[in-house]
Amino acid sequence: MTIPLDIHLKIGGIIFPNMDQCDFTGPFEALARVPNSSFMTIWKDRNPVRDLAGMQLLADTTFDEVPQLDVLLVPGGYGQEALMNDETVLSFIRRQAAGARYVYSVCTGALICGAAGLLQGKRATTHWTAMDVLPLYGAIPTDERVVIDGQFVSAGGVTSGIDGSLIVVSLLRGETVAQELQLYMAYDPKPPFHAGSPATAPDSILATITERARAITEKRMATGRAYQSRIGGA
Amino acid sequence: MTIPLDIHLKIGGIIFPNMDQCDFTGPFEALARVPNSSFMTIWKDRNPVRDLAGMQLLADTTFDEVPQLDVLLVPGGYGQEALMNDETVLSFIRRQAAGARYVYSVCTGALICGAAGLLQGKRATTHWTAMDVLPLYGAIPTDERVVIDGQFVSAGGVTSGIDGSLIVVSLLRGETVAQELQLYMAYDPKPPFHAGSPATAPDSILATITERARAITEKRMATGRAYQSRIGGA
Repeated sequence: MTIPLDIHLKIGGIIFPNMDQCDFTGPFEALARVPNSSFMTIWKDRNPVRDLAGMQLLADTTFDEVPQLDVLLVPGGYGQEALMNDETVLSFIRRQAAGARYVYSVCTGALICGAAGLLQGKRATTHWTAMDVLPLYGAIPTDERVVIDGQFVSAGGVTSGIDGSLIVVSLLRGETVAQELQLYMAYDPKPPFHAGSPATAPDSILATITERARAITEKRMATGRAYQSRIGGA
Repeated sequence: MTIPLDIHLKIGGIIFPNMDQCDFTGPFEALARVPNSSFMTIWKDRNPVRDLAGMQLLADTTFDEVPQLDVLLVPGGYGQEALMNDETVLSFIRRQAAGARYVYSVCTGALICGAAGLLQGKRATTHWTAMDVLPLYGAIPTDERVVIDGQFVSAGGVTSGIDGSLIVVSLLRGETVAQELQLYMAYDPKPPFHAGSPATAPDSILATITERARAITEKRMATGRAYQSRIGGA
């Protein structure tokens, strides 16, 4: 059931150092254009935040100032690891999740939501390199591009955030609005190669990217195991 | 022929007020990860630039400071109109184009390149609402998602910039590198609806978005006609 158009929607997304900017900017394109809504970009302060590849973004507002949101977007990227024990971030996510209609994670943003305790018993997805980390947060890894489990919506790696954002728009305002935004965005993708997922990429490409992600993947696994010991022992 | 890996590539992209951020941030994801390259975000100053939907981006450097680039990315969005007679911007584009390997326009960034005089006799594409504007700049409108005409590469609306960026990467560094980035970005798109192009969108959706773009389209046509009179009369 979508939300009546006369109800104003508050949508917000977190940015953070060494995030993957596309996890945020892809969904922003649709989410910031939801009819009768406002979008807030959120971080600890209003200083420039550099993404993993150096793009500089600025927050509009800070955690303390954000009202209850209808939708909270949580992107990922290597910098996600630095937030996994950051109570300022985790308690913000928990607090917002308690009242939000949807929490929407993109890529390894799912792991941050996991560290906030949101994933217990939930079906979820994340970047394909990090799927094995999800169970450490009590989630049920689900190999789909976008997964909806109640309030929690998750998209897979990076660009899957665009697909997921159109689904979130359709949940909020219906399919017509989502299709209007899709046409505006000319989202009729034609990838020039067939290497976009582990299932379609040539073996050698898959091996290269798996190896390139090995250090961060091991770190994510270790963080997840530490979380599990802590929760299990509580 | 790709460029030997030991040659460092300088890649840069312009940002500007009321741009469509996704025209820039989509391609950034791949272009900022080209092996042995650096990426510069460029504007007149280092103050925050707000895109059409309010996202705040910051430039790393200014027009005067940018060395000769190998690739210049020119995004679009409604704010493109304000640049069409801005000699600071247009002369920068002309100067860079004279020495760049590629000029890569996304969405209505093609019109800015047109105003800079780069499109005479070139096959090019742009956002579908602006295709009729291209001939006013001497371009040959080409209804493909990504068009390559010599040094000039153009992508259609908004998200087509992602497809085009992988093609630019393959031109620079070969298909293996482009496929590695595609897998990293999990670019295996699954649009939830079939409304991403005028050919696939339901008639009512097409009518809505065409109407919503009417004022800016008329403005773009008028700017293009003024350009043509000026050039024709020169």
